[in-house]
Order: sequence, then structure tokens, then C-alpha cells
Amino acid sequence: MDELKLRILTDGKNLGGGILKVDGFINHQVDPALMESCGRELASRFARVGATKVLTAEISGIGPALMTASHLHVPVVYARKTKPVTMPDQIFLTLAPSHTKGRTVELIVSPEYLGRGERILIIDDFLATGQTIMGLVRLAQAAGADVVGIGALIEKRFEGGRELLSTLGVPIEALALITDMSEGRIVFGQ
Amino acid sequence: MDELKLRILTDGKNLGGGILKVDGFINHQVDPALMESCGRELASRFARVGATKVLTAEISGIGPALMTASHLHVPVVYARKTKPVTMPDQIFLTLAPSHTKGRTVELIVSPEYLGRGERILIIDDFLATGQTIMGLVRLAQAAGADVVGIGALIEKRFEGGRELLSTLGVPIEALALITDMSEGRIVFGQ
Repeated sequence: MDELKLRILTDGKNLGGGILKVDGFINHQVDPALMESCGRELASRFARVGATKVLTAEISGIGPALMTASHLHVPVVYARKTKPVTMPDQIFLTLAPSHTKGRTVELIVSPEYLGRGERILIIDDFLATGQTIMGLVRLAQAAGADVVGIGALIEKRFEGGRELLSTLGVPIEALALITDMSEGRIVFGQ
Repeated sequence: MDELKLRILTDGKNLGGGILKVDGFINHQVDPALMESCGRELASRFARVGATKVLTAEISGIGPALMTASHLHVPVVYARKTKPVTMPDQIFLTLAPSHTKGRTVELIVSPEYLGRGERILIIDDFLATGQTIMGLVRLAQAAGADVVGIGALIEKRFEGGRELLSTLGVPIEALALITDMSEGRIVFGQ
């Protein structure tokens, strides 16, 4: 998606070590118009998978997931990383190693909002190692729901997430696919 | 705003102790259409304050703030509660006691996205004790920005936040104002 790629090239920063800074338009400051376009595009790419719900992880997945869900006219659930007081005692919980945080995080969803027969579209800001998304897949499976697609704004192809997730046999879409970030480069692929 | 009040009455739960559970449509599962309506309404109420940016706090402020910013055609910044690796060393940081979490949280904004001369509209899901919002006010003030309005989806009037914030002399708007949650009640006021 050219609009996102152009924005990454103009406002994104390759900080080295595979870290792409997109704090100016996705992860800290958010451009609502860009997020709207990305949500519309993801909704369009997954228009035929019959999703009944979008699932993401707090924090930075919320924007893209909300905008995608808005265009698909389905609810969005964001997995929590800490259990709020409003959540019941019985929950779905999985652990996912976070590359950028350097530690393992909990992903928690209430059984009230994820159930058998749901058709789940997973949306996140990044597809990198795929560990967070695989955590969301496990939550959906634990609930007896079917994962019908996986979408991300930005994929870092060289971190192997697509290989991990391709075993699921569902469509995987990324709006900006980055194949190389070595030596300060930001190289897009198809 | 009748749409939100009706939803609170049908899907919200008074858990006692002043805790209103809205996990089914705002805080864990989100209804994008409702959030869209709320964003449009908040944008309309603050149409004349000349906001150049919307400021909120992660996590549950992101949805309403993003939708409001989308209708105002301005960026939204969400204060982080932990400093990501992509943020510079020099940051704006304040501490805010969290009533629902029973502890003090950090609110962090990068000086890259909050600066002198900005006109800041603060949007959050709840206006309760006002402590989180007052933390966001301090961040804006530290950056030399002006707070021009404060909006929330739900106000719990009996927790005193409005009194605390009214000293700022800016318009304060809540889409659903709750005056009483004693004995299992959810009573709306004007």
C-alpha cells in the first residue's frame, strides 16, 4: 500500500537492530487519516473470509484493528496484558515472548468475548517474529474459535514470522512488506 | 448522548465500589460503530476550540481519542505507561495515581510530538477522579502547550474529577454523566 510505504520512508526511522521507529504516525502519535486508509485496505483484503470479530493485542494494535473492524462492521477485541478488575476469574491466558520488550508478556482475553464458532481476523501493527500473533492464535483456538486471516500494517519479512504463521493455512496480508533493514536501509518487497 | 447511555444500561454492569464494567463495548471488546458515533459527537462539541492535537493515555483512551481526532482531522498522541526503545532519552514524564489499578502509573510523552503552541484536546474513556486527565494536563503544560478542552465518554460525577479539572477554566464534556452508582444503580444526570 503506497500511502503507508511512502510515510515509512518519509517519517519512519531505521534505528538499527531491526527496529523501525514509526512513533510519529502509528505507535505514539497516530495519524487518523492514515489509520483509516489502512483499516479500509485491510478490510477490503479480508472482505471474503467471513470474519465475525477482529482480535488484536493492546497497545499499538488497537488503532489498526479498530479501523479495520469499523469497515468490516464487526466488533474488535483487544487482548489485555494485565487482568483488569472488571474481568471474570476464568480467563484465556497465554504467554508470548516480546522481541522489542525483551521479556515475555501475558495476553489475556475474557471468555465473554471470544467463543466457539467465532471467525477471527487477527490484526496487529507489526508482523515480525510472529510471536504475539501466534499468542493471539492460541487464545482463539483455546476459545474454540477459528482464525480466518492475519493482517498487519508492516511486515519485517526477515524476522521469520510469516514462516511461523504460514503453517496455519490462512491468508496473511501486510500493507508494507520490508525485506531488508541492514546498514540503515528500508527496502520494500512484494 | 442517548446511544451511549442506552448501551451502558443494556450492556454495562455496576460491579459495586463505583466500578462500571463496560468491557463489552469500550474497554476490552469495542463496538467500532458506537466508538465512531462517540468520536463524531465529541468532535462536534469541541469543534470551536481550535484543537491542533488530541492527547490521551493508553490503553482504553485510544479508541475514543482516535475516533475524535479522525473527525477533527488532527493527529492523536497517546501517553505511554512504559518507555519504548524507540523513544528518545529526554521525555516528558508525570506520575498519576490510578484508582482502578490501586497504584501509581507513569505517563510518558516524547517531546517530538508535544510542543509549544499546540492546542491540546484531552480525550479519555472515563472521567472519574480526574487524576489521569490531570496527569495529561501536566504533560501538556510541561511541553508549553495549551489545553483547550477535556472530553470523556463516561463521567462518574460522584468521584470529584470535574471539580479538580474545573480550575483549569476549559470546557469539559462527557457523553454519559453518571451521578449515582450506589446500591447497584446507574443513574444518569445532566
